[in-house]
Amino acid sequence: MALSPASNLGPAVGLICRECGTAAELGPRYACDQCFGPLEIEYRFTRTEGAHPEITRASIEAGPRNIWRYRGLLPVPDQVAETPNTEPGFTRLVRADQLAESLGMSRLWVKDDSGNPTHSFKDRVVAVALAAARELGFKVLACPSTGNLANAVAAAAARAGIRSAVFVPSNLESQKIITTAVYGGTFVTVDGNYDDVNRLASEIAGEQEDWAFVNVNVRPYYAEGSKTLGYEIAEQLGWRLPDQIVVPVASGSQLTKIDKAFQEFIKLGLVEDRPYKVFGAQATGCSPVAAAFKGGHDVVRPVKPDTLAKSLAIGNPADGPYVLDVVRRTGGAVEDIDDAEVVEGIRLLARTEGIFGETAGGVTVGCLSKLVRTGQLDPEAETVIINSGDGLKTLDAVAPVVGPSANIAPSLEAFRAAGLA
Amino acid sequence: MALSPASNLGPAVGLICRECGTAAELGPRYACDQCFGPLEIEYRFTRTEGAHPEITRASIEAGPRNIWRYRGLLPVPDQVAETPNTEPGFTRLVRADQLAESLGMSRLWVKDDSGNPTHSFKDRVVAVALAAARELGFKVLACPSTGNLANAVAAAAARAGIRSAVFVPSNLESQKIITTAVYGGTFVTVDGNYDDVNRLASEIAGEQEDWAFVNVNVRPYYAEGSKTLGYEIAEQLGWRLPDQIVVPVASGSQLTKIDKAFQEFIKLGLVEDRPYKVFGAQATGCSPVAAAFKGGHDVVRPVKPDTLAKSLAIGNPADGPYVLDVVRRTGGAVEDIDDAEVVEGIRLLARTEGIFGETAGGVTVGCLSKLVRTGQLDPEAETVIINSGDGLKTLDAVAPVVGPSANIAPSLEAFRAAGLA
Repeated sequence: MALSPASNLGPAVGLICRECGTAAELGPRYACDQCFGPLEIEYRFTRTEGAHPEITRASIEAGPRNIWRYRGLLPVPDQVAETPNTEPGFTRLVRADQLAESLGMSRLWVKDDSGNPTHSFKDRVVAVALAAARELGFKVLACPSTGNLANAVAAAAARAGIRSAVFVPSNLESQKIITTAVYGGTFVTVDGNYDDVNRLASEIAGEQEDWAFVNVNVRPYYAEGSKTLGYEIAEQLGWRLPDQIVVPVASGSQLTKIDKAFQEFIKLGLVEDRPYKVFGAQATGCSPVAAAFKGGHDVVRPVKPDTLAKSLAIGNPADGPYVLDVVRRTGGAVEDIDDAEVVEGIRLLARTEGIFGETAGGVTVGCLSKLVRTGQLDPEAETVIINSGDGLKTLDAVAPVVGPSANIAPSLEAFRAAGLA
Repeated sequence: MALSPASNLGPAVGLICRECGTAAELGPRYACDQCFGPLEIEYRFTRTEGAHPEITRASIEAGPRNIWRYRGLLPVPDQVAETPNTEPGFTRLVRADQLAESLGMSRLWVKDDSGNPTHSFKDRVVAVALAAARELGFKVLACPSTGNLANAVAAAAARAGIRSAVFVPSNLESQKIITTAVYGGTFVTVDGNYDDVNRLASEIAGEQEDWAFVNVNVRPYYAEGSKTLGYEIAEQLGWRLPDQIVVPVASGSQLTKIDKAFQEFIKLGLVEDRPYKVFGAQATGCSPVAAAFKGGHDVVRPVKPDTLAKSLAIGNPADGPYVLDVVRRTGGAVEDIDDAEVVEGIRLLARTEGIFGETAGGVTVGCLSKLVRTGQLDPEAETVIINSGDGLKTLDAVAPVVGPSANIAPSLEAFRAAGLA
């Protein structure tokens, strides 16, 4: 399958290996021919001949209220916003004064990505993957997943009117099966764990040349979708960067792409070039990047995940080393907390700001608290944290510790006796 | 408890009885002194002396991207957007070409209110109730509920930093208890059915004078929040009204307030005055308004609900007669469908547009289909339907009919043998 000469992927001009720097033509490839390293998109944003139109604050502000306002910075066709899609993004940036006060901080914001169409940040990356995949000639949108990604792929394909094919471990909870199967695509349960499913997906991708596994063979395009989190934060702060940002780390891609977005905005002159610190957040039960950071290593040693924060449970994170680079370059840190602290993080965010985040949000809030307590994060500096998903999808995490204040008979006497007034 | 002279409820100037027309002063009251009929807000929108500033398209468009862009049309303080709140509204209006095609329609839109902070339209009404309740001097935000309203009240109060008190039947599923209790307010389970809980709430409201039960003693303010659905639809269509709109009917308030919003926009000159038809949608297992419409009656006879569309299961709908008025005045209809059609409606919306609605959404899609089939709704005229909540909260409805396409061993051979390529 070849990219046609008429292809339109916006400002994307090629691919480049993140390990050895070898260039490759734009197309349906994801690994370097020379060293098998991961490929990343190369752009041309400047106003030189043949380049993409200039990006300004005004041109962005004139765009739609979703991620496509940044289409000039993404590997997608210019007309992407006019093709049926789930229109993710431009989620709320919530000023979190009560959460800040409870942590002894001055100025804190929550980027609440539970507001996306299927209620996680995965709608962003899937939307970019879908747009690029169509342009690259793929016919089926596919993924291996255990949760949020499956929802996002099935919904996005349904909306776009193309086929989806989602592969999950067969022991997945029935709730998670329903929330994806309802969209009516091909939905396959596989007798094996997530690693088995992931391996099978790679094998199928090698055989079915018109299947785009978003997180496998179109990963370079897919991953760019996370840049939009960074763009939105900067724009919603009034075209400036925060002093500090705390990002949950699974594969590590989200953190590195937020940094990439900030760097692009600086280079394009859209925000002032000033220092910011990037912090990573993990659950101790799956904290290979935190362990490497704390040990002063450059290599991330794989672990076997054992945490209730399942959406972050990637034991061998592909972007782990790049997370270490960003965190060390900016003067941040990677922290981790145990599962009890994750649950406490979910509850604290809900009680103080009325936002019910999933376990990944609990990890971020809990790590924020620990970073402040341990003096690694400045409580006086402006800070943004990411809530990447919705608590409705991980009810089991809080079920053991959340319940009624009282149970009463249906009478005023019972109400008075319960001392609730 | 009296409204202070300094009170600021925007353009609201008084209360008026919907039954006998008796006027009452703006304040914490909800029933007419003369006839016990429901009170409704009176406004002064014109530019006469002492009235509220003029409302124009430009003044609205300059507002925030949430319901507070319409604050000049709501009984809330002018500074409402600056007080911490959940910022609901301005949810997506989705052009639904694939759903339209499957129903033989030309031009169909879905107003997808699952994008609200707690994923139902209740965030709108609760936000208005909260803003008015604070101005009226209430200290606690309360409600009887079995689901969406409980979520919305608990989240809104947490975000605002005030106490919530939510009352639910004690046999409620543990899932629904968790999704409200996580916000940390007072959460009381009551040994009784919803009617018992509702009655207890009224009794407590009579005794705890600083408790605002949003759907009881501040109902006149609360109900106005649904107007924002109508405002947004008109604005998002490019400042014009649709030809037809299909709205789910529980108490009937949402339908009557959308009509009120359209009428206000016409009177204010914000949209062209042209005919539109309003249709109501119910589940047959709780269809007192549809029965009255079909029987040609003015009185709605209460029923005992028996449907899986629990968020619509109000057997004695307070606004039922007003729904009949609106539907008959505009040339619409009220239709109902059985529970199997509700489930099919949920699946159809998910498969064609990637939107997973709750049972109320299934009712609306299913009734839309029936209205087209029976010739009551014009398939060529532009139509808007409301999806008022999120399928994640009513998984049980689709669980029996949704599942995997196949279960395979983790190998390419098994994948090939399953015939999925």
